[in-house]
Amino acid sequence: MHDRFDGLARLLRAALACALLVSVAGFARGEDEPALRNWGRWGADDERGAANYLTPERIVAAARLIETGKTFSLAIPLDEKGPVYPGRLNPHRTMVISGADYAAGFESDFKFADDYIYMPLQGSTQWDALSHAWYGETLYNGVPESAIRGAPVAGGATRLGIENVKDSLVGRGVLIDVLAYKGGTLPSGYVITRADLEGALAKQGTEVHPGDIVLVRTGYVSGYYKLEDPAAKFEYLRGPQAGIGREVVPWIHEKQIAAMAADNLGLEAVPIAAESVHGAMLKDLGVYMGEIWWLDDLAADCAADGRYAFFLAAQPLHIPGAVGSPLNPVAIK
Amino acid sequence: MHDRFDGLARLLRAALACALLVSVAGFARGEDEPALRNWGRWGADDERGAANYLTPERIVAAARLIETGKTFSLAIPLDEKGPVYPGRLNPHRTMVISGADYAAGFESDFKFADDYIYMPLQGSTQWDALSHAWYGETLYNGVPESAIRGAPVAGGATRLGIENVKDSLVGRGVLIDVLAYKGGTLPSGYVITRADLEGALAKQGTEVHPGDIVLVRTGYVSGYYKLEDPAAKFEYLRGPQAGIGREVVPWIHEKQIAAMAADNLGLEAVPIAAESVHGAMLKDLGVYMGEIWWLDDLAADCAADGRYAFFLAAQPLHIPGAVGSPLNPVAIK
Amino acid sequence: MHDRFDGLARLLRAALACALLVSVAGFARGEDEPALRNWGRWGADDERGAANYLTPERIVAAARLIETGKTFSLAIPLDEKGPVYPGRLNPHRTMVISGADYAAGFESDFKFADDYIYMPLQGSTQWDALSHAWYGETLYNGVPESAIRGAPVAGGATRLGIENVKDSLVGRGVLIDVLAYKGGTLPSGYVITRADLEGALAKQGTEVHPGDIVLVRTGYVSGYYKLEDPAAKFEYLRGPQAGIGREVVPWIHEKQIAAMAADNLGLEAVPIAAESVHGAMLKDLGVYMGEIWWLDDLAADCAADGRYAFFLAAQPLHIPGAVGSPLNPVAIK
Amino acid sequence: MHDRFDGLARLLRAALACALLVSVAGFARGEDEPALRNWGRWGADDERGAANYLTPERIVAAARLIETGKTFSLAIPLDEKGPVYPGRLNPHRTMVISGADYAAGFESDFKFADDYIYMPLQGSTQWDALSHAWYGETLYNGVPESAIRGAPVAGGATRLGIENVKDSLVGRGVLIDVLAYKGGTLPSGYVITRADLEGALAKQGTEVHPGDIVLVRTGYVSGYYKLEDPAAKFEYLRGPQAGIGREVVPWIHEKQIAAMAADNLGLEAVPIAAESVHGAMLKDLGVYMGEIWWLDDLAADCAADGRYAFFLAAQPLHIPGAVGSPLNPVAIK
Repeated sequence: MHDRFDGLARLLRAALACALLVSVAGFARGEDEPALRNWGRWGADDERGAANYLTPERIVAAARLIETGKTFSLAIPLDEKGPVYPGRLNPHRTMVISGADYAAGFESDFKFADDYIYMPLQGSTQWDALSHAWYGETLYNGVPESAIRGAPVAGGATRLGIENVKDSLVGRGVLIDVLAYKGGTLPSGYVITRADLEGALAKQGTEVHPGDIVLVRTGYVSGYYKLEDPAAKFEYLRGPQAGIGREVVPWIHEKQIAAMAADNLGLEAVPIAAESVHGAMLKDLGVYMGEIWWLDDLAADCAADGRYAFFLAAQPLHIPGAVGSPLNPVAIK
Repeated sequence: MHDRFDGLARLLRAALACALLVSVAGFARGEDEPALRNWGRWGADDERGAANYLTPERIVAAARLIETGKTFSLAIPLDEKGPVYPGRLNPHRTMVISGADYAAGFESDFKFADDYIYMPLQGSTQWDALSHAWYGETLYNGVPESAIRGAPVAGGATRLGIENVKDSLVGRGVLIDVLAYKGGTLPSGYVITRADLEGALAKQGTEVHPGDIVLVRTGYVSGYYKLEDPAAKFEYLRGPQAGIGREVVPWIHEKQIAAMAADNLGLEAVPIAAESVHGAMLKDLGVYMGEIWWLDDLAADCAADGRYAFFLAAQPLHIPGAVGSPLNPVAIK
Repeated sequence: MHDRFDGLARLLRAALACALLVSVAGFARGEDEPALRNWGRWGADDERGAANYLTPERIVAAARLIETGKTFSLAIPLDEKGPVYPGRLNPHRTMVISGADYAAGFESDFKFADDYIYMPLQGSTQWDALSHAWYGETLYNGVPESAIRGAPVAGGATRLGIENVKDSLVGRGVLIDVLAYKGGTLPSGYVITRADLEGALAKQGTEVHPGDIVLVRTGYVSGYYKLEDPAAKFEYLRGPQAGIGREVVPWIHEKQIAAMAADNLGLEAVPIAAESVHGAMLKDLGVYMGEIWWLDDLAADCAADGRYAFFLAAQPLHIPGAVGSPLNPVAIK
Repeated sequence: MHDRFDGLARLLRAALACALLVSVAGFARGEDEPALRNWGRWGADDERGAANYLTPERIVAAARLIETGKTFSLAIPLDEKGPVYPGRLNPHRTMVISGADYAAGFESDFKFADDYIYMPLQGSTQWDALSHAWYGETLYNGVPESAIRGAPVAGGATRLGIENVKDSLVGRGVLIDVLAYKGGTLPSGYVITRADLEGALAKQGTEVHPGDIVLVRTGYVSGYYKLEDPAAKFEYLRGPQAGIGREVVPWIHEKQIAAMAADNLGLEAVPIAAESVHGAMLKDLGVYMGEIWWLDDLAADCAADGRYAFFLAAQPLHIPGAVGSPLNPVAIK
């Protein structure tokens, strides 16, 4: 009738590794890139990775970017309608008591409404923890994959969990509006190059500083919300996506970027190339990856005032042992 | 054998309204306080309440408090071990794939770990939305209780949801260390007075400004974490709690406070007085209430440097229609 | 960007009422059918409906059908891959500890594996309780819709919950293999008629007795499992489905059928006709509806031995206040 | 402040192995019992264990016990109030739309109510699958522990899942009312002996046949429901429980019992003895264990009519890869 092995595993494999397209070497590090590793850079036991670039001094400098007090939420609605990889569920929120119950006659001495949610921590605007993806048998800084266990009994990510940056990922944010730079549209599956990033920055008149959180705009997420038909949405989520390519990784390293996020499902282009960006960023460099961000409102404002750098409060939730976290990043100008 | 009505409803009633102690008038507004209402103050259709105090100018001013770049997470671990009201569940996080599976022989072309969570939005460090609690048949600004519905099909909080402040609740934070002011310990169930707050502020040399997010330290949450025995924890959660009293409400109003949070389960003292603080703050004033915050690390630093005001990034998650939100507030000095 | 009202509500509306096709009078009872009601038949306070047909004597008689001891599970796998209405989630099961954790080095004095599930009670092989669907402001036996509330605080289905038949829905089962009768295939959206049922029964040489649980085979569910492509599956779930039509309702009433189930998503044909079968069966007659059953194995055996009647253990779970329940019906010959 | 390793793992360890009392050898098989194993008995690849005793002939014979048509649900309410091991959650059911929403003004062309549940599969009346507990590195029939993996991506119990008996565990049930036999009360933590079982059977005039599903009444679960105070319930769940002892295992083997269940949390007595019943029954014998059953109604009827044998429909849900399943066992006389 059907066997248990062909389901979610296959869907997730298809989605995350891009099914028919990705090489089996998807997460393999190139043999010619041994230098691109931050292992040991911040100590043999370090679990924070590139968040170490985000020094107090840089936070103070970033705060000086707050000039007008305008704020921008960079999160999509955390609900059952957003774009997520097929194979993951959308967040599902229910209420255990609501005003309708009282209005319909439920009696109580006091009145309150409460809600619950079931969701993947990778199912909305999110950070990937350094424990989220890897290649081989080790993760960032040589942590063995067996340290990432079932939860809650076995502890989940006993190392490299998102709680390591619970008081971080706040600092200077820079938007690189690749979408605008390329004329307002990107081919589906377009692989963003280093030249694209540098060209957009030059056009914008923006510089990237060490410790920055860099936001790359592709238009993929807002494209999803423009679709009406459920079948079209479904196909869109399965299809190619514009995102950064592996070639960008050395640039991320040179620039000492702390974290990078985009308005697509996985930051990197889909189909994922033979040597994935995930493996390079999370395992080799320890750089945090942000996915499914909402950049349109911020981008419109940056285009209007010409300021593409801002203060960014992008702290994750404090979830011990989690391999990622939903968040509501707020940019402040 | 047992009937279905005596369970969670009773537990929640007992917990939220404080069991045997609360008056049935728990959430009733006093007839003699008609002036203490912000209804209409920001328009007849306003859904943001006292977040309107948090103007861009005040955000800019708050940013100037960032002098050293030190950051403090004010969230307890969002896990299955924290203090929550009996009747609510603790957050429960599981993994759908982990490193242990690969280490034990599960084969895949790529490797990743993913996790899911089931949780009350009121089960860890949180904001109450203005739709969370009320008395009578209306909420803040006259919104009828029937506008707060089941979710997701009927829309949840179709008005006054937490998404109204998705780009807010960032600004100037002030810690009022009542615990230290009262000598390092508060009697269980102690009702914090206006004089306590003013006295602590005077001792600290701190002023409260319009639009501030005020944090009140009681020691209740850290007291919970000092307990070892599950039964002792259980009783602690059912017992009296130090928190603010109704008498503080006019002061909140005068000071034009945008939001107030504490390191206890409900900000206000338990047992809840006949006229609750919840009803007054959420419905009458539209002031956001923060609960189950972690203030010890911040308090230690404030005591050390004498600076009790700071920049606070306390934006909620962007959850449309939610009556509250977990968050990880980060204080930056 | 997107509003909160166009999502699940729309999907569910589209799915359950069949989107563009169903009349707004979908659940309305025809004015000319006042006689087709069992209200009051078993008392003014009855909450069990047609389960009352399932008398002890009939259970004893049904037990005599057990001749060979062959058993057939009539449930699809309760997992993340089955057919459910778009807008509902598939069941999602995770493990909190598994053998892989121990194999990967997690130490414990004892070893066990535990799992959790999140699921709609209407997301796999199921019974609809009499509280699941209705038209107008009342349900079966005149229960007001306000008696079906939020859960768990307000009690869920405070009347007509599935727990009313926790010790029932076991008795004589009859398979009507409409699929075979019509030549092995049914047009998508085919509306099964009374003549079809009677013709199939005659061909099979089977009679329906009072108190029977009648199973109607359409082939829809097994058709789903034959599909490979996720997009094809998605479209299949949105498309028309063979099922019974409103014309069958009087026959159900005459035959004193206790419950009827099918191997499709809603028992009745989709698109749902202006006057729905759900409204007539659940509200007017109090007859339980079974959905997403797996009938292929049983049907093959019935065709082989010519015996289409059997003992059926189809008790729901004992979930107080639930508007439906997953189950694993077992037919025994 | 608190570390992530001392939480649920400790609670579950405390609960399942009975905290301060169980020997670290809890699940170890005695060296002197090599004969008590059914490995290979039904083939080297068998995954059904003692369910193989439940032959068609025995099912037919069991059906002859249906004489009056009286039915008894043996499940506790599957809700948030039942007795579960500390460390596991109670089932938590919410509604996504209810009648209250319509009554309060939510408009829709049709009306329905839907509900969702989050629950441990070990959190109510349940079967343990053969994959649920073990000692050493192997499970029943030599299956390696690494075959029990995270879910859903890695497949959960890829062997010995509960789906192996989706069409079984229906047959002859026998109630052994140890509680009545011992005078209506059992000391807390009482270890039920083989002599107790044989004595009760003799008093009842009942025999156990090969392939039987044997139900042992201890009174523990109904004792829980008699408690009112939450703290008393909490302590009750942590305390000693009457249940069978290891000495009973050879008797189970001799009698060729297919499955055994009780009205307590783990069938065996708590504190668990150095050599656990779980290890012996699940791993060595492949006998299914039922927990948290409701036996009071059935016991009263058996006492009244003197018939302690009956037909029992105790099929689990069809959950592929699950290490257990909730169910609603129905006894029919």
